[in-house]
Amino acid sequence: MAPQDLSSEFFNVTQPYEYVVVVEVNRPAKLNSFTGQMFTDLGNIFKKLSHDPDVRAIILTAIGDRAFTAGLDVTAAAQGPLTGGGMKGAEPERDVARKAWDLRRHIKEIQEPVSEIEKCEKPVICVMHGISYGAAIDISTCCDIRICSNDARFSVREVAIGLAADVGTLTRLPHTQVPMSWIKDICLTARDFDAQEALTMGFVSGVFDSKKAALDRATELAKLIAEKSPVAVQGTKAVINYSRDHSVEDGLDYIAVWNAAMLQTKDVSDALLSGLGKNKRKPVFAKL
Amino acid sequence: MAPQDLSSEFFNVTQPYEYVVVVEVNRPAKLNSFTGQMFTDLGNIFKKLSHDPDVRAIILTAIGDRAFTAGLDVTAAAQGPLTGGGMKGAEPERDVARKAWDLRRHIKEIQEPVSEIEKCEKPVICVMHGISYGAAIDISTCCDIRICSNDARFSVREVAIGLAADVGTLTRLPHTQVPMSWIKDICLTARDFDAQEALTMGFVSGVFDSKKAALDRATELAKLIAEKSPVAVQGTKAVINYSRDHSVEDGLDYIAVWNAAMLQTKDVSDALLSGLGKNKRKPVFAKL
Amino acid sequence: MAPQDLSSEFFNVTQPYEYVVVVEVNRPAKLNSFTGQMFTDLGNIFKKLSHDPDVRAIILTAIGDRAFTAGLDVTAAAQGPLTGGGMKGAEPERDVARKAWDLRRHIKEIQEPVSEIEKCEKPVICVMHGISYGAAIDISTCCDIRICSNDARFSVREVAIGLAADVGTLTRLPHTQVPMSWIKDICLTARDFDAQEALTMGFVSGVFDSKKAALDRATELAKLIAEKSPVAVQGTKAVINYSRDHSVEDGLDYIAVWNAAMLQTKDVSDALLSGLGKNKRKPVFAKL
Amino acid sequence: MAPQDLSSEFFNVTQPYEYVVVVEVNRPAKLNSFTGQMFTDLGNIFKKLSHDPDVRAIILTAIGDRAFTAGLDVTAAAQGPLTGGGMKGAEPERDVARKAWDLRRHIKEIQEPVSEIEKCEKPVICVMHGISYGAAIDISTCCDIRICSNDARFSVREVAIGLAADVGTLTRLPHTQVPMSWIKDICLTARDFDAQEALTMGFVSGVFDSKKAALDRATELAKLIAEKSPVAVQGTKAVINYSRDHSVEDGLDYIAVWNAAMLQTKDVSDALLSGLGKNKRKPVFAKL
Amino acid sequence: MAPQDLSSEFFNVTQPYEYVVVVEVNRPAKLNSFTGQMFTDLGNIFKKLSHDPDVRAIILTAIGDRAFTAGLDVTAAAQGPLTGGGMKGAEPERDVARKAWDLRRHIKEIQEPVSEIEKCEKPVICVMHGISYGAAIDISTCCDIRICSNDARFSVREVAIGLAADVGTLTRLPHTQVPMSWIKDICLTARDFDAQEALTMGFVSGVFDSKKAALDRATELAKLIAEKSPVAVQGTKAVINYSRDHSVEDGLDYIAVWNAAMLQTKDVSDALLSGLGKNKRKPVFAKL
Amino acid sequence: MAPQDLSSEFFNVTQPYEYVVVVEVNRPAKLNSFTGQMFTDLGNIFKKLSHDPDVRAIILTAIGDRAFTAGLDVTAAAQGPLTGGGMKGAEPERDVARKAWDLRRHIKEIQEPVSEIEKCEKPVICVMHGISYGAAIDISTCCDIRICSNDARFSVREVAIGLAADVGTLTRLPHTQVPMSWIKDICLTARDFDAQEALTMGFVSGVFDSKKAALDRATELAKLIAEKSPVAVQGTKAVINYSRDHSVEDGLDYIAVWNAAMLQTKDVSDALLSGLGKNKRKPVFAKL
Repeated sequence: MAPQDLSSEFFNVTQPYEYVVVVEVNRPAKLNSFTGQMFTDLGNIFKKLSHDPDVRAIILTAIGDRAFTAGLDVTAAAQGPLTGGGMKGAEPERDVARKAWDLRRHIKEIQEPVSEIEKCEKPVICVMHGISYGAAIDISTCCDIRICSNDARFSVREVAIGLAADVGTLTRLPHTQVPMSWIKDICLTARDFDAQEALTMGFVSGVFDSKKAALDRATELAKLIAEKSPVAVQGTKAVINYSRDHSVEDGLDYIAVWNAAMLQTKDVSDALLSGLGKNKRKPVFAKL
Repeated sequence: MAPQDLSSEFFNVTQPYEYVVVVEVNRPAKLNSFTGQMFTDLGNIFKKLSHDPDVRAIILTAIGDRAFTAGLDVTAAAQGPLTGGGMKGAEPERDVARKAWDLRRHIKEIQEPVSEIEKCEKPVICVMHGISYGAAIDISTCCDIRICSNDARFSVREVAIGLAADVGTLTRLPHTQVPMSWIKDICLTARDFDAQEALTMGFVSGVFDSKKAALDRATELAKLIAEKSPVAVQGTKAVINYSRDHSVEDGLDYIAVWNAAMLQTKDVSDALLSGLGKNKRKPVFAKL
Repeated sequence: MAPQDLSSEFFNVTQPYEYVVVVEVNRPAKLNSFTGQMFTDLGNIFKKLSHDPDVRAIILTAIGDRAFTAGLDVTAAAQGPLTGGGMKGAEPERDVARKAWDLRRHIKEIQEPVSEIEKCEKPVICVMHGISYGAAIDISTCCDIRICSNDARFSVREVAIGLAADVGTLTRLPHTQVPMSWIKDICLTARDFDAQEALTMGFVSGVFDSKKAALDRATELAKLIAEKSPVAVQGTKAVINYSRDHSVEDGLDYIAVWNAAMLQTKDVSDALLSGLGKNKRKPVFAKL
Repeated sequence: MAPQDLSSEFFNVTQPYEYVVVVEVNRPAKLNSFTGQMFTDLGNIFKKLSHDPDVRAIILTAIGDRAFTAGLDVTAAAQGPLTGGGMKGAEPERDVARKAWDLRRHIKEIQEPVSEIEKCEKPVICVMHGISYGAAIDISTCCDIRICSNDARFSVREVAIGLAADVGTLTRLPHTQVPMSWIKDICLTARDFDAQEALTMGFVSGVFDSKKAALDRATELAKLIAEKSPVAVQGTKAVINYSRDHSVEDGLDYIAVWNAAMLQTKDVSDALLSGLGKNKRKPVFAKL
Repeated sequence: MAPQDLSSEFFNVTQPYEYVVVVEVNRPAKLNSFTGQMFTDLGNIFKKLSHDPDVRAIILTAIGDRAFTAGLDVTAAAQGPLTGGGMKGAEPERDVARKAWDLRRHIKEIQEPVSEIEKCEKPVICVMHGISYGAAIDISTCCDIRICSNDARFSVREVAIGLAADVGTLTRLPHTQVPMSWIKDICLTARDFDAQEALTMGFVSGVFDSKKAALDRATELAKLIAEKSPVAVQGTKAVINYSRDHSVEDGLDYIAVWNAAMLQTKDVSDALLSGLGKNKRKPVFAKL
Repeated sequence: MAPQDLSSEFFNVTQPYEYVVVVEVNRPAKLNSFTGQMFTDLGNIFKKLSHDPDVRAIILTAIGDRAFTAGLDVTAAAQGPLTGGGMKGAEPERDVARKAWDLRRHIKEIQEPVSEIEKCEKPVICVMHGISYGAAIDISTCCDIRICSNDARFSVREVAIGLAADVGTLTRLPHTQVPMSWIKDICLTARDFDAQEALTMGFVSGVFDSKKAALDRATELAKLIAEKSPVAVQGTKAVINYSRDHSVEDGLDYIAVWNAAMLQTKDVSDALLSGLGKNKRKPVFAKL
């Protein structure tokens, strides 16, 4: 299936350049807020892109001027299990443990599609703009590179709606390697923070004058990545993610095992040859 | 016991606003330097605040203009076991292993009260000013949020007095997620660094014009936290701390188990309801 | 053996001040690029400095104006096993698994000398200037403190030559505690970044006007470190490195065991005494 | 869907008693050897049983007298990717790294369904008889309880067919807590071992005179489990599995969070009441 | 305080031999079943013995012929928080999350005193007889050595009373290194197992003809331990416990740091001297 | 260098069969007790055998009838640093911390050669007989398979000579997966245990009537191993050792990366082909 055929009601998937795919959240009328189904759809898209040899870099953005996403669709969530049954009447007769069991299963079911973004073998660049609340943080912490336009406004919303974030924010933020004092500040207060603060603290690694400028930069990065050996690029992503959760000792051992196979690729000699001699030319790497 | 009754010789404990408690180090004549007993007292205060349903946010500060704390009371420490017996004459007859055993026990006895600050279920905001040496780092790295006034001067003192920090600085600094090159710089040289450097490196997440301004900001943050659901706030603190020391995989599993119970709170629907509709009003959450 | 006798064809080792040693990469004609043998030599030098009682701080720099190092000597590497045999003709007859086995062994053999820098008991300050590519990142992430001159240009080169970095960059960068979004950006694109960006992101903790100014600052830091108790300094390095790879709980226990012995040093009382009273003087600490 | 409707070409799924389900491998003509598709089917069955409220205990066995399973269907595997392309002609033109990438994906695709048995929320009792080779070890180490008839003959086959086991045997055997010296012995030699040796070493926890006797015992255990509170039983499985891979400290914390919800079940008072007083009766627990 | 002064209503503490202390559960009329208070008392006793220089080995046993302990006092527990409020009426009005919070705190409060047995610096030998249910497993898995008389009958009771064990059994059993298949069998069924089965599976390391014979053997072991260097004995316990929860790499590093201090004891030369030469005599070691 | 040329004063290295090497401790006059130098020599032998393509299985045994080894040469050790300087006079003037530093370095220097046995890529079978004390446990826990003759007498000697074992016993025994209660028993008492007890507890996986019979069995095992694909055998050892120290999740991922390269070996199709069809014949595998 061509990447662009992955489009669905709430997501556009396009391939503007060779090897570069753009995934857009497409529910601008509702500020791109997420329903449970949208998490599932998003997970499926990234699961498929992960193994697609025609894809080498993915840009995740959202349609409309006002919001990357306003987060969970609260009206929908209020009926659903994610908020403990929410307002739909309390099921007082239901055994607490059995309800807990269902909730745990349900949380894991929402976590899984979000984790597909992190597990996606291809690098993912997240471009945020405008309102970037709640799910915006859950989702963007699964991406490899985060940049934004200078009108972006972020917020970890969960404590504002009475719950501890469970789709990944509280777990992944401490692994984005931004200062812990600031992480606690934004998570415990649910306060807004802007693009500049996000940059200073390292949450995003670039801020641009407009959504368009940010997308241009993302495209530039994506093309840069896409012209490299996919064996090298995807290995780099895999090994950094492994190292994040393991000791240095373990990381060194893992990369040694990894490269035992991967160094046998022709890409190395192709890349080396292209860089030597006078007439430099771009090497062409086979699909992966 | 009301929080304010926890005051002791060297610590003031007050409750200026509902759910907000202020703990002040109170030994200004000695630049708020710490004796062994003061560590014990501080631990006891935080242990009690941890389970107190009338407390939702804690500010840790110190009395006087000159210092948050000058660190260990060196004159006192010089007699004590923490410095290996210090200058009190060497006990040359004592078996080295037995002395080592006592020292290890003693270090753990000092570590425990300091760790109570980190284990405290309620968020703790540390406001530092003036001289903030040695124990200031040990203690503030146990707090959730660190801010300071622009006259703050910090130093990891230990190598200056001949020992590797053992009350927590060397262990917790690498988990505050500030750049490791800078951590090594300040720990290996014992050099001073100022408020601005602390902010740039992420050690503090805010610098203010005066001690008063910093305290005002802390109060603002504390009130913001205190008006949120305590189930959400305390869960957020617990899960971030867990995630800091575990892999992403483990963290996702933990929050799913955690929220299996916590999502059944009424706070979620109360918070959701308060945010919907026209007449927004602040929800009132039961004590925890 | 005196530290200065460790000099070899490609490395100068000098001791300009008591307890301070300077190691210089010395292959300026080739932009200080590294051959396999040079990794081995560098490892041996640091292995010996590690246990040398006349050494308390080490500065790692490179000769020449243009480059700290341009990275792997590509021409040499192109023949060698590190690049999977490179261009020397493919050995098509060789069993893939057996070739993989050799590669894994070989990668570990290159990793080991680089790791000697990290394992070195003495603090290491890395001063980078000019072109600081590939191996520059591998090596400098093993050092305790990284500073540079403002003409430094960095790049994680590996994806540009078709492979995932395996000498340590991908493993150690996520443990330098700089923002993960930026780490992915520079590792996946192989793009250049300059001294200022390196400082903002925390990769280096200081940028200076010239190579000389950077070296002056390194010397200042080295002397500051060298005048402290070596028991305290080397313990501080060891415990921070341990804490980086372990939970807070584990770290606190480790430092307690560590100091059970180390607090029995006379250095503590010597340092304490020197700081008290009127006539302050520098304490003299025995070698370690 | 009723559990019994999960039957497929190669698996019978029946429900002989309330809450007790029996899964039978059904390819006796081929000694119940496994094709790739069979792994997928098995995974799907356990994935569905995992959430089925009508299931409280599962028995995994195999049809026929001669074999639980002879392992991988070698003839089929010889064509397939699991054996590196096997004998189907070498694809000499294919890049080694790209082939490696495919293999890694494929191994994970086979690992996943096998892991579903371990992840299944309901306890699984594995009853082995006759030839129990290769996949028999992979699969049974995912089960909670392993018993066998005295004619069972086991073998970790992988080194005999030229590869290191990758579907789970090498990973899970060291976590079954049987002596490591024996694990290495059977894994490195691929030698047969019988029911008695398996019992002595603790690999199985019961040996019975015949397949029928073993199945009778399994049924007895399954009924015993099925009459208990499913909240208690499934929690016990989940927490033991967590504890296996974590420190004691972590395990204690996890069970405390777990039971914060689960202890609120009515099952506890129901069970307690049924055990007190004179007229003991079996409590009836709601489905989970 | 002399060890024997630690006796309380439900525990006898005696010192029959130099350095050997015996702790006896003393509630035979109730089959030595445990109330919440008894856990607290037991924890306090072991906390004090841990630092007592007159103690080198501890035997934990119970008074009466019928039971080591029948486990939790169900009648008492039925009122208490450990069973989720048990039968005392459901508090239907209470918020589930707040109740969960209390339960988690309460579980940790019961876990703590039990863990004191494990943390006790002195080796603890547990001697079980007769009914050894529930808490017997929780407690004995904290002890270093477990032996029993041949009339001992064990059971992990929790699933029989509707809950997953949370005082330590599910966490510590997988770390006693007995076969996992058997652990799951006894934990999921709550079935009885006898002394012989406990020995075969390795849960106990000795079975004796009578309670008296088992106590005699425990005394023998305790005396053997007590005559050794306490620096060596207590170090051995500490390092084995550390190694249980860490990798081999970590364990080797830890013992090296540990012995850096402990090898400086005179006990080594005293022990060595006593073993050399003709006139062997028992060395006398200083208290620890 | 041919394996047999590795022989030295205290070790015989022979190659009685193709691919099978025998290493014998050769100091029978001193009951094969170990000096520091002997540890170094042993490490060097195994380091070289590890990469030798002519070796596929190694048997470690000892010359003479009376002892595998009596452990550390106490007379030699009494002078040396391993025992804290032992009896050679106390160096009272030496700073405790500096002495501790030296001891830590020295312990690591002894640990390293012993660990070479564990790191050796080829499987190692340890055959013990007679007195097998102290170092016998350190060394044999590094081996993959442990068997013995029925006259073997074991003892973890360390507490008998006043120290906690630091060359590996305390760290590796808990990872041999034998019951923890028994490990504590033998380590805390330093008591003897015989071959039968070692077998029952799983420390050895075979006991034979005589040293000769044990060696015959070891030869049988070694030949069995040597005729298998070395890619499969050495991979199996590597992955089991990795899995021992990691979670199941991590282990599954590691083997998938490992086999990505290793499944591309021709050994698989060679082994598969040899097992199919009528005329079975032993496959011949290339060296590794």
